[in-house]
Amino acid sequence: MLSVHSDEYFMQQALKEAQLAFDKGEVPVGAVVVSQNQIIARGHNQTEQFKDITAHAEMVALTAASHFLDSKYLTDCTLYVTLEPCVMCAGALAWAQLDRLVYGAADDKRGFMRFGKRLLHPKTRVEFGFLEVPCRELLTTFFKSKR
Amino acid sequence: MLSVHSDEYFMQQALKEAQLAFDKGEVPVGAVVVSQNQIIARGHNQTEQFKDITAHAEMVALTAASHFLDSKYLTDCTLYVTLEPCVMCAGALAWAQLDRLVYGAADDKRGFMRFGKRLLHPKTRVEFGFLEVPCRELLTTFFKSKR
Repeated sequence: MLSVHSDEYFMQQALKEAQLAFDKGEVPVGAVVVSQNQIIARGHNQTEQFKDITAHAEMVALTAASHFLDSKYLTDCTLYVTLEPCVMCAGALAWAQLDRLVYGAADDKRGFMRFGKRLLHPKTRVEFGFLEVPCRELLTTFFKSKR
Repeated sequence: MLSVHSDEYFMQQALKEAQLAFDKGEVPVGAVVVSQNQIIARGHNQTEQFKDITAHAEMVALTAASHFLDSKYLTDCTLYVTLEPCVMCAGALAWAQLDRLVYGAADDKRGFMRFGKRLLHPKTRVEFGFLEVPCRELLTTFFKSKR
């Protein structure tokens, strides 16, 4: 029997990563990288833990995926991330020549889409809005708890 | 006697880092981070060594500077880099709230300035063209040797 996971399943896994960030007091964003229907890398935001603004969920997952594949390029991979990537992460995904980007909640203030899809590699397909409500609610709960 | 180093001196140090990258067969880009007239971090491109597109000179130097300062923010720092930063690195410098960016050679194809200074933090001052000729020549020599 073929077991093919859905976008919703993989976004649930990204959301689990976001919850790990939440539990550590980090802005709750999580990501997974999928190749051939398998999760090959996971990451969550660790900028406070490492005191390093480059430790975004996408960057952590992208670096882990490159190590797993022993390749700088993620040309057959999909990245699932709970929040719209920022400019830094979009620039990284462009270098990696990512095949497909799927994100949950939009980030009108910090997200790369302010500049449009041209920040990504021309071949990268983009979809968004998967599990948008729980992805955003986790962020809202986090920021409310910080006030 | 006050010993105050010039922009040219610090760019020479960034160029030394670029030479280290060149010697390893990496695209020769180098960077240093300066705080209060002292170099607090250095970095050169290591994307081939680590098979990781996030290991740009700027990212390596920025992460090292954050560790040195034990802070995510580089609000009193200048980054000297031999080549105009890409979108990823500009996005990282924006998060770090860098005070001042000084770069050598322009990068019309991959540089962040295609999108303008708005990719950086509004407070970041930008200057360029320091030691532009040797910075570019090292890159030209590298790419010629790869043909």
